[in-house]
Amino acid sequence: MPKANAFYAQSGGVTAVINATACGVLETARRHKDVIGKVYAGRNGILGALNEELIDTSKESAKAVAALRQTPSGAFGSCRYKLKSLEENEREYHRLLDVFKAHNIRYFFYNGGGDSQDTANKVSQLGASLGYELTCIGVPKTVDNDLPFTDCCPGFGSVAKYVAVSTREAALDVASMCETSTKIFVLEVMGRHAGWIAAAGALAQREAGDAPHIILLPEVPFKKTQFLARVKKTVQEKGYCVIVASEGAQYKDGTFLADAGSTDAFGHKQLGGVAPVLAEMIKAKHGYKYHWAVADYLQRAARHIASATDVEQAYALGRAAVELAVAGRNAVMPTIVRTSDAPYRWKIGEAKLSRVANVERKMPKTFISSDGFGITAAARRYLQPLIKGEDYPTYKDGLPQYVTLKNQLVAKKLPEKW
Amino acid sequence: MPKANAFYAQSGGVTAVINATACGVLETARRHKDVIGKVYAGRNGILGALNEELIDTSKESAKAVAALRQTPSGAFGSCRYKLKSLEENEREYHRLLDVFKAHNIRYFFYNGGGDSQDTANKVSQLGASLGYELTCIGVPKTVDNDLPFTDCCPGFGSVAKYVAVSTREAALDVASMCETSTKIFVLEVMGRHAGWIAAAGALAQREAGDAPHIILLPEVPFKKTQFLARVKKTVQEKGYCVIVASEGAQYKDGTFLADAGSTDAFGHKQLGGVAPVLAEMIKAKHGYKYHWAVADYLQRAARHIASATDVEQAYALGRAAVELAVAGRNAVMPTIVRTSDAPYRWKIGEAKLSRVANVERKMPKTFISSDGFGITAAARRYLQPLIKGEDYPTYKDGLPQYVTLKNQLVAKKLPEKW
Repeated sequence: MPKANAFYAQSGGVTAVINATACGVLETARRHKDVIGKVYAGRNGILGALNEELIDTSKESAKAVAALRQTPSGAFGSCRYKLKSLEENEREYHRLLDVFKAHNIRYFFYNGGGDSQDTANKVSQLGASLGYELTCIGVPKTVDNDLPFTDCCPGFGSVAKYVAVSTREAALDVASMCETSTKIFVLEVMGRHAGWIAAAGALAQREAGDAPHIILLPEVPFKKTQFLARVKKTVQEKGYCVIVASEGAQYKDGTFLADAGSTDAFGHKQLGGVAPVLAEMIKAKHGYKYHWAVADYLQRAARHIASATDVEQAYALGRAAVELAVAGRNAVMPTIVRTSDAPYRWKIGEAKLSRVANVERKMPKTFISSDGFGITAAARRYLQPLIKGEDYPTYKDGLPQYVTLKNQLVAKKLPEKW
Repeated sequence: MPKANAFYAQSGGVTAVINATACGVLETARRHKDVIGKVYAGRNGILGALNEELIDTSKESAKAVAALRQTPSGAFGSCRYKLKSLEENEREYHRLLDVFKAHNIRYFFYNGGGDSQDTANKVSQLGASLGYELTCIGVPKTVDNDLPFTDCCPGFGSVAKYVAVSTREAALDVASMCETSTKIFVLEVMGRHAGWIAAAGALAQREAGDAPHIILLPEVPFKKTQFLARVKKTVQEKGYCVIVASEGAQYKDGTFLADAGSTDAFGHKQLGGVAPVLAEMIKAKHGYKYHWAVADYLQRAARHIASATDVEQAYALGRAAVELAVAGRNAVMPTIVRTSDAPYRWKIGEAKLSRVANVERKMPKTFISSDGFGITAAARRYLQPLIKGEDYPTYKDGLPQYVTLKNQLVAKKLPEKW
């Protein structure tokens, strides 16, 4: 009987380091050739399994696989596709197992956020109930940092570093210009439901009173009057005001600021996110000249300024996923366990998929300053180590050398229609 | 008689490397103590001279001055303040000379764009006509890259690198997501009048057909139908489409796209720049899911990803400015002279301020591809060397260590009122 193969898929929004996890999975699997045959990667994530579009990663050179560590985004393609519950769509789960069977896949590594961990768990259960031996390991990934049981999520540390560095740099710019020109700078960052990313902006501060002067988190209901008063006070004291706003900043009733201005009284759609809304709000009240930036994909793709800690953890979790599988563990997710804040120390732990699935971790209240516009010392202690260290990609002619894989598909064995 | 002092001022929009020029000026002046006494820096640029707010740079340690080389934005403050013509406001020019006389300032280094070169020139003329011996040297700076006689302008290479790197990274992100989610990504960059910065996005391409697929330059009148057709074709062929748009992208009649949507039929102001306008335009026609980013200050402050070539040239121009002054030259600006494309070689030249003043250099037509959506091989040959090399700042705890100067003011000698 040929050796069992593995299936690896990337899921959901990609990050600066999800390929570092892929690198960890592939390199470790190659070191366990006695147990694991080929590693197939799903073309565009789990869709690759459903469509039987399996990328044969054995065709990639060791050098190409190693280069994944420094390449952002999903090298095999990702997808936003959530499998429904077993009850609602058993057919999809059966198809998945049919494809696995056809290619002798006995290991399933699913690299994603909460939904993906849930899917991996369900596939594991179904395999067991049907008597198909299958090892399912979830591998955490999300810039949102909202998975439970792990101290942090790969991808987050690098976004946090990007936001902290960019905020520090832009703040110097505004400080230079404020005497005669721009007095307000608003940076909009990701985080629809949790403020982890916006909170990381605070790391730009060297001491109390430094920029960013205001951080807007989804966890804290937006109060316009208080906000505008704080802006004015800051400009009066410092000459300028830097604001980091989460895209999920919202009013008490749950309305997003970004949506608040999206249709006017005549039903005309207005463009733009939370940054321009805030900038105009300030201008209307105080008349200050403003600039705003929306980082969007730049922040989560910014491998050029990735956190070395994040890259290392992303790789380590990929490696641990394979090692757990080889050791016979099933339906688990390797995690980051923090053992010390300063000096920062961490190790790999594990959590049961059944417990991880669909649990969202918000910022604890103890991380938010009493005025709601900043973070506490506890938050700083938590966040600071995650952005530590630089891990620069190699450059050629002034540009980072990101690898493009061959991504050769395996011949299909099943009918196209299912 | 005490040695003559110097005055240095930063002007207009700051850059990632204007402080590297300041570093070149200060370090070189310190090596010429036999000729130049103290270097005073204007607090908030030329306003510092008008208000007699002179920063005594001799109070800064050699280490702090050296750290300017790796610190973005204007360490002494800048301003948007254009002196009027001599005829319109002779009073200001006289005040400038009064302050210079009071502090025995005989060297004036003005670090800025076209307007600043013009001012430096006028001050030089007035000094001569009044018999006050004053050496005026312009030092080029502008991310817009629009000064004549110099091959490029310090600040531009680093923005170009930021845009090229960010475009390459974000393009990988969209490529990963496009199967089930985002198909369009629009990055808005600076350049109100010239497309140099947007053009640099093309450096992200490794081969023809790579992202960015469309570049929108202010030099090319925007044609909606052609644009939307190209977007559709690109998505059909590649699965996604990446667009780099200059903030100055405009219709044939000169209307900026960013303003086009700024008021609706009812006079309601709409928010946002060119990126959201384009994204919505595409969505309305083709229904593609989009993401957009506006880099704004992040791009010109991004010292963390500065071009080593740019940093070196910025420093060299600061050094050359002082050396020209010491050599007895007057009313000139040091320039970058390119002597070879590949291998890239350059040297310092000089241009007369009277010829530089108020001349704007646009992208030549030979740099724009025939379809208007990209750049030519000639443009690539010009741009490529400018982003070459990395010059990372030092980091501590995951963040770049940018210096904050003491900025001690010299005691005033003149009445506050003038």
